[in-house]
Order: sequence, then C-alpha cells, then structure tokens
Amino acid sequence: MLQAILSPADLLTTLGERYATKKFDPSKKIPHETWHALEESMRLSPSSFGIQPWWFIVVDTPEIRARLLPVSWGQSQITDADRLVVFATLKQVENKHVRHYIEDMAQTRGLRPEDLAGFEQMLQTAMMPKANIEWNRRQSYIAMGFLGLSAALLGVDTCMLEGIDPTAYDNILGLTDTDYATVAAVACGYRASEDDTIPEKRAKSRFPLDEVVRHV
Amino acid sequence: MLQAILSPADLLTTLGERYATKKFDPSKKIPHETWHALEESMRLSPSSFGIQPWWFIVVDTPEIRARLLPVSWGQSQITDADRLVVFATLKQVENKHVRHYIEDMAQTRGLRPEDLAGFEQMLQTAMMPKANIEWNRRQSYIAMGFLGLSAALLGVDTCMLEGIDPTAYDNILGLTDTDYATVAAVACGYRASEDDTIPEKRAKSRFPLDEVVRHV
Repeated sequence: MLQAILSPADLLTTLGERYATKKFDPSKKIPHETWHALEESMRLSPSSFGIQPWWFIVVDTPEIRARLLPVSWGQSQITDADRLVVFATLKQVENKHVRHYIEDMAQTRGLRPEDLAGFEQMLQTAMMPKANIEWNRRQSYIAMGFLGLSAALLGVDTCMLEGIDPTAYDNILGLTDTDYATVAAVACGYRASEDDTIPEKRAKSRFPLDEVVRHV
Repeated sequence: MLQAILSPADLLTTLGERYATKKFDPSKKIPHETWHALEESMRLSPSSFGIQPWWFIVVDTPEIRARLLPVSWGQSQITDADRLVVFATLKQVENKHVRHYIEDMAQTRGLRPEDLAGFEQMLQTAMMPKANIEWNRRQSYIAMGFLGLSAALLGVDTCMLEGIDPTAYDNILGLTDTDYATVAAVACGYRASEDDTIPEKRAKSRFPLDEVVRHV
C-alpha cells in the first residue's frame, strides 16, 4: 500500500497557508532539487487514459518574460517570480499522438507496440472522439493542481494565472505552428515581504465545508 | 513565508508510487481524521477569482452507488472504494452566485458586502462572460488534482473516473433541477491486494522530462 508521508494535520496547515501570491520577491531563487521535484510533479500528474496531452513550458529567458507581461494584464508575477510555467495542451489528440504514447509505454514496460494493440484501438475508439481541446485543457488543470499543492508542500509560493492572452502567448512562445496551444500559466517563487494578500493579513475566503461537500 | 513540510525526495516518492487504482478493497476504511483533511483539500483548492464553482458530492448510500455502477461502464471502483466523490460544477456563473461569493467573503473578512463593490463589479465584467460550463469544469480539475495528491500523501489510493455518464449521474444524484452538473468522479480508499496494476508490477508510463517540460 501507499506509505502515508504526511499527517492530516500537516496537510491542513499547508492547505490553509498557501495562497495566490500577488507579489513575488525577484531576488529569491528556488533551489535546484526543489525545482526538479516540481517539474516531476507536473510530469507525473495523472491524465485521462494516461495520454498526457501537455507541454509545460518554463520561460527562463528574461526577454521572453518581458514580452509576455503586456499580454498578461501587466501582472507582475510574470516577470518577478523565479519561475514561470506556461501550460500548453494538444489542440486535438490525433492518431500520431496515440501512436507515440503507445511506443513510449511499450518501451517503458519492455513490450513491443503490437502487444498494446488492444489498448491502442481502445484509445482510438473511446478516447479520440472526445479528446478535443476542452478535454485536453481540463487534463492540464489536474497537473496545475499537482504543481500548486506540491510547491506549497515544499515551501514554494505560486500564483495560477488564467488572465493571459493565449493567442499572444502562442505567438511569443512559437507555438502557433505546433500541435499545442497555451492554456494558462503558473508563477513559482517566493512572496515579497510587502505582499498584503497573505492569509495572515487577508483571511482566505472559502464557502463552508457543509455547503460545498455534500453527502448523499 | 510558507514552511516546507515535505522534502523534495519524499514528494518524488509519493508521486512515483501513486497510481490510478483499478481494484479497491471494500473492507478497508479511511480513518475519520484523514477523510476530513481530504474534504478540506477540495474545499481549500484554488479556483479562478476564488469563485469556487463546485460541489463535491460524497456518495455514502450503498443503493445510490449501486445505481451509479451501470452508468459508469461497470467500473468496480464505484462500489468497492470506501469513498466516492462526484465532482459537479455550475452550468454558468450567474449574478446570484457572484453575490453569494461576495457576501461569504465579506463575512469572512469582517467587511460589509458594499466594501467589496469594486471586486463584485470586476467579477461581473471580467469573469462572468467567460465562466461557462467548460471554464467551471476546468476549475474543478484543479480540485481533482489537490484531492488526488493529498490522498496519496496521506496513504490513500484514488482513481479519477471520467468514463461516466454525466446526465445519468445528474438524474440519480438529483442535480437535474439545480445549477450544478456532474463532471467526473474520484474513488478513494485502499487498493485490493490482487490489483495487478500497481507501479511495482506495471511500470508507470510517462513521457521523458525533457519532452514534456520545455525550457525557452
């Protein structure tokens, strides 16, 4: 069975203390080992049928960050956070993507792609008809959740940014002629000391448990 | 700043060991304190503008579980897992939902709703036009990620189930005349010893890191 690596109380502490960081300290850097684990938290996220219809684009180049800023409502997290991850997803899952997935899985498991022919056919008939861009976008939000919670557990602040212009992002990031399109971004780093939106100063606002969690 | 409550190595262990559980042990129950923390992991998930366009419906009644089984491709997790959570989201974010959110936030922060008039207006102009069912569904997938990872960290197995008939779920759960509609479900509990799909027996299949995480 899975080993419990955290206590319920510690999880609750982290859930209560994380928040959407408005102001990052540009001088604070995420340690390499921590960042590697956060990249893995995205890669190892689950997706429907395991199809992983995503790219996670880490924007390291300051000039590119500067160009993204005006097409992100000028939100300072875009340039101030140590890391900026742009989530992009397949516009449509096509046969070639299914084939690539099958070949990758076969290699991982020491099989031949032909051994997975039944699974490949199931993907083509049961998954492909519904794997449009909306479906792919939803999948990437699971990974956004994994990244956001993983970061908080490792002491890293994040802000999920949906208020961006995806088409402008596609142009700036060179996605226009690829099979992928921008969905959203997540800024990762450490809060600035002057951020007044931390939960200690501005109480986290959530509906009561018995309103959103309903038992039937 | 956020306190790091987990090491990168421990996070990687959990990420590598969690998997979509195919067969649950119906006799194994999640401890109360653990389950409470998992309900909170959904409630405290982030959503765009904090609007929380969701219900998390925990199906405790065995008879309802039995009725959901045939409209879930007969997947045994529906009836065997200790807990089954159905994710439902608003079909459309309307003025009354925005108002309810504002009133809840005002109460949490010791303000009058009028004090948040600027924020309310921003929600009406910047959020409402895009907060359709697809947008709401995406938000709920962040919470699905939070639940899935939180459960793994507390030693609880999960399986995210998208292969369900949402319309039939709406009927069975009595959602049809509400503002909410079924999106997906997550089964939570403990794996059966005879589950052959655990990562130790069937290697987790993921694209390489340098394929899905791209640096620009």
